Amino acid sequence: MPAIAPDRRELLLDAAQALFAERPFDAVSIADITQRAGVAFGLVAHYFGSKRGIYVASMQAMADQLRAVRDRPPEQDDMAIALQVGIRRHIAYLEEHAVGFRVLMRGGIGADEEVRQIVMKLRWEGAERVMMALNVNHPIGPELYSAMYGWVGFLNESMLAWLEQKAFPREQFATMIIVMLAATLRTVITMNPHTGIDPRLLDRLELGS
Amino acid sequence: MPAIAPDRRELLLDAAQALFAERPFDAVSIADITQRAGVAFGLVAHYFGSKRGIYVASMQAMADQLRAVRDRPPEQDDMAIALQVGIRRHIAYLEEHAVGFRVLMRGGIGADEEVRQIVMKLRWEGAERVMMALNVNHPIGPELYSAMYGWVGFLNESMLAWLEQKAFPREQFATMIIVMLAATLRTVITMNPHTGIDPRLLDRLELGS
Repeated sequence: MPAIAPDRRELLLDAAQALFAERPFDAVSIADITQRAGVAFGLVAHYFGSKRGIYVASMQAMADQLRAVRDRPPEQDDMAIALQVGIRRHIAYLEEHAVGFRVLMRGGIGADEEVRQIVMKLRWEGAERVMMALNVNHPIGPELYSAMYGWVGFLNESMLAWLEQKAFPREQFATMIIVMLAATLRTVITMNPHTGIDPRLLDRLELGS
Repeated sequence: MPAIAPDRRELLLDAAQALFAERPFDAVSIADITQRAGVAFGLVAHYFGSKRGIYVASMQAMADQLRAVRDRPPEQDDMAIALQVGIRRHIAYLEEHAVGFRVLMRGGIGADEEVRQIVMKLRWEGAERVMMALNVNHPIGPELYSAMYGWVGFLNESMLAWLEQKAFPREQFATMIIVMLAATLRTVITMNPHTGIDPRLLDRLELGS
């Protein structure tokens, strides 16, 4: 059976991701993208309308891939371990796609409102996945809301700093993120005891890491 | 004694900060800025060269003000209390200048490389101030480097979420940030015992808050 050829839309998205990660938005032309993808010039307009259209779509594609990796169901039922597996997968994916991650986070190639929305949605979904696993009460209290945004900010910023140097193992970095999640949630429980989070789950989350 | 009139450069910067906080970069004209400032149209070119020039200068001015507030020497010598005072001042300033803070963080009005540099410098200086107060060993280990970026990310992201709702007191928010600093540094000490940070200082930092 012959390998299935990636479709041309896919080839264009891959080329766009690579180019927008290398150069500012204004320094990438439609011709650059179609040449890299090895397809006809007119196809960017056909599939995406414009250069901005393929830019937004390429950022959306990266966010979708990250979401798919993070949300793949874990193999076991233990919630503490499932959370750890999810966080470690997320971090491994970011390491593999470090350039694209930097572009998404820093918006260095043109602060596009639509891309900003894609990133904000992705952030909050990550926090929501964690809170779902922890069985938090709804509605989410304001302390937990603020703190979970904080933890996602911790993860993203410390990850960018870690990627600069990679001076200690990823396993250890992931452990730091998991321990900081437990610390974040313990702080919230102290501020507001009505979160529904079981502190024993946090002990196991931390220990198992 | 008559009040000293703010100079025209100052008036322009204030007007630019307010307008760029309200509207995207492209939706603000030089005429909008000079009208708001009540000065002649030609003065933007005279002082700042261009619209981009006054945009970058207005972001730089905000960063400088924040730095001045944060770095004002505290009135007492106790290092744990001095740190708490510095962090609380920083947070109070961000609350007072919430719109500008959001613009600086989200880059929603045009991702300008120069503005990005201003923000990144401001972030790391904040982390450095904290580490100076804690007497950390130099060179800074990679775990501490990554974790301090993480803590600054926690502060900024949780602050943006807190500002959306303001559903619990600022005092309590500041305490959360201080407790998370202690948790961050404890985690680093576990990973790398050669930071030079005295764990007893962290106990006092947390307790006194």
